[in-house]
Amino acid sequence: MQTISIDTKNKHYNVYVGSHIYESVLTLYEKQLQKADHVVIFVDEVVAKLHLENLLRPLELISKKAVHVFKLPAGESSKAVETFMACHSFLLEVGCTRKTIAFALGGGASGDVVGFVASTFMRGIPFFQCPTTILAHDSAVGGKTAINHPQGKNMIGSFYQPDAVLFDVSTLSTLPPKEILSGMAEVIKHALISDHRWVEELFSFQTFYEISNDQYLSYLVKGIQVKAAIVEADEFEQSVRKYLNLGHTYGHAIEASTGYGKITHGESVAIGLVISLLLSEKVQSLQKGTARKLFDALCAFGYSFDPVLEHKIDTLIGYMKRDKKSSFGDLHFVLLEQIGQPCMEIVSVKEVLLAHEQLRKWSMEVHK
Amino acid sequence: MQTISIDTKNKHYNVYVGSHIYESVLTLYEKQLQKADHVVIFVDEVVAKLHLENLLRPLELISKKAVHVFKLPAGESSKAVETFMACHSFLLEVGCTRKTIAFALGGGASGDVVGFVASTFMRGIPFFQCPTTILAHDSAVGGKTAINHPQGKNMIGSFYQPDAVLFDVSTLSTLPPKEILSGMAEVIKHALISDHRWVEELFSFQTFYEISNDQYLSYLVKGIQVKAAIVEADEFEQSVRKYLNLGHTYGHAIEASTGYGKITHGESVAIGLVISLLLSEKVQSLQKGTARKLFDALCAFGYSFDPVLEHKIDTLIGYMKRDKKSSFGDLHFVLLEQIGQPCMEIVSVKEVLLAHEQLRKWSMEVHK
Repeated sequence: MQTISIDTKNKHYNVYVGSHIYESVLTLYEKQLQKADHVVIFVDEVVAKLHLENLLRPLELISKKAVHVFKLPAGESSKAVETFMACHSFLLEVGCTRKTIAFALGGGASGDVVGFVASTFMRGIPFFQCPTTILAHDSAVGGKTAINHPQGKNMIGSFYQPDAVLFDVSTLSTLPPKEILSGMAEVIKHALISDHRWVEELFSFQTFYEISNDQYLSYLVKGIQVKAAIVEADEFEQSVRKYLNLGHTYGHAIEASTGYGKITHGESVAIGLVISLLLSEKVQSLQKGTARKLFDALCAFGYSFDPVLEHKIDTLIGYMKRDKKSSFGDLHFVLLEQIGQPCMEIVSVKEVLLAHEQLRKWSMEVHK
Repeated sequence: MQTISIDTKNKHYNVYVGSHIYESVLTLYEKQLQKADHVVIFVDEVVAKLHLENLLRPLELISKKAVHVFKLPAGESSKAVETFMACHSFLLEVGCTRKTIAFALGGGASGDVVGFVASTFMRGIPFFQCPTTILAHDSAVGGKTAINHPQGKNMIGSFYQPDAVLFDVSTLSTLPPKEILSGMAEVIKHALISDHRWVEELFSFQTFYEISNDQYLSYLVKGIQVKAAIVEADEFEQSVRKYLNLGHTYGHAIEASTGYGKITHGESVAIGLVISLLLSEKVQSLQKGTARKLFDALCAFGYSFDPVLEHKIDTLIGYMKRDKKSSFGDLHFVLLEQIGQPCMEIVSVKEVLLAHEQLRKWSMEVHK
């Protein structure tokens, strides 16, 4: 098991990464769990069938109480305000108070909504993140919580750090291929903003199936370390934390246009990464050809660029102008001066249009 | 104009109290207002008719932009999740971003919901509190934001400090008598937890109409100072901040049983204060007769104790057990060792029952 500690201004906590770690980690929190008046698990209904028992059993044993379970709809649909309110109703019906501890078991979506519930129930109760996807190596760390508004993803939320993150990588073996693609996009992003040798290592694979379990583990730990360092420096996203949004401005627009749940977050980010690199070559000093190299690698890994062909650029621009990093209707992008050196840049609509057209051409070539 | 500064761990801000102060205070924030991409005012629809122009005019002048206005339903009904979502929709439709500044103009309810909207829109935007009631001298300071859940008041919320509080006391002249009662209950509470001479001064009045404008101003400033000192010591209500809930455990139960909006917050708190003092005489060292003195003073001021006669104690106890200060189903009360010396105490159901019965008797006497 590896432990990464995160020190923000308001909270110090650990991220534990390893296989079958629930029991040993929970033991470290025995006192806190026993002092709680209630312990509840919020779990994605699909994940519940696969992994709930593995968490529930040691948790009941160690906390010495019956643990209450609330099942969330699977995936992004759980991030609707209706689910958020249903979680609050459940907590009130159980009789929870500020001395209750909540667990989020599932992928990024359930972590986001449960984090927001924990941050707002009676103005905040402690909670533990137990991610079960590669994607959640990113979202479970750093304290961003959110639900979706019909007009935009993650528009309603808070910064609220968990008490700990328990990342049991043995749960990853049950991931469907789409979820592997989704999660690995964020790993590739972490590599792009931090370390060119790591990028080359990732590009050396022909498919993700070549990656061994040990390599996965090391990539996830590395990704979390990249994120931890950035969150420690800028918890509330006033400066460097924005770099973690590489690929997300265009990616979120693709995700919103396609419809949440129809395309995964990471698949959208993967597309956004290519746009960011195209823009970086044009308006920054990124070496020419890097975007194409990334595009080819992503195609080989199995990412689809069809959504680029399906949406009008005007629709996408509309979503991008509403991005959380934007202001005054400008388009704010994270770009790369070079691999490992991110920067923020205001980009003209015209430049985005050109990058979009370039990616359209490449995407059409794939179909020939 | 008087200025009270509040220094919490995460934010330093000022509370300005005085008559017709909007223009002069906003001038102090000129740069920030001009840098914002949008400025929006959320205003209680009743307050809008009386005071909106007084804020809107200087705000447009000083921010150099058209200010967007969203009207909230008057009173406690604005704290429904539907209003919360409507506020978010409005912000998105206007095209607001993290660089938008929100103003809350109105009483405690609008301050609560707008604060929660500001704390959650894109994970937090700056906001200014402009309270227009006596009650809001309390709620606008200290960063507690909330909406109601059908099963409990203020169950969903956050700790989120405003950028400043602009308390224009000239707005108080339009307050209906019920609102004066509501607000003065919190003033009396601030006196009870801090200063016995202040309590005696308040009890020396026969009606609130004897209080001069200057005296009102000094009481409000004193109340804010009491609150500021406590919030600085314990922003997240882990210890001494709980003292501000004197009268609120039973008070909230009365408010919830009667129905939010049918009885004001302060009217409920006034009833709760008497219960707290009855319990303080019984299980703490508070001088016997103090509760009766308070009861008589409150009756003279015009507070009604009829709700005590209208609700079954079982229903009230049910609500009290769900109070945010509770845990394990115990009843947690703020009590007074003596006036000016609050403490936290777990009180048995039996003691609460006895206090309730005593207050019922007194309340029935009033009707004879």
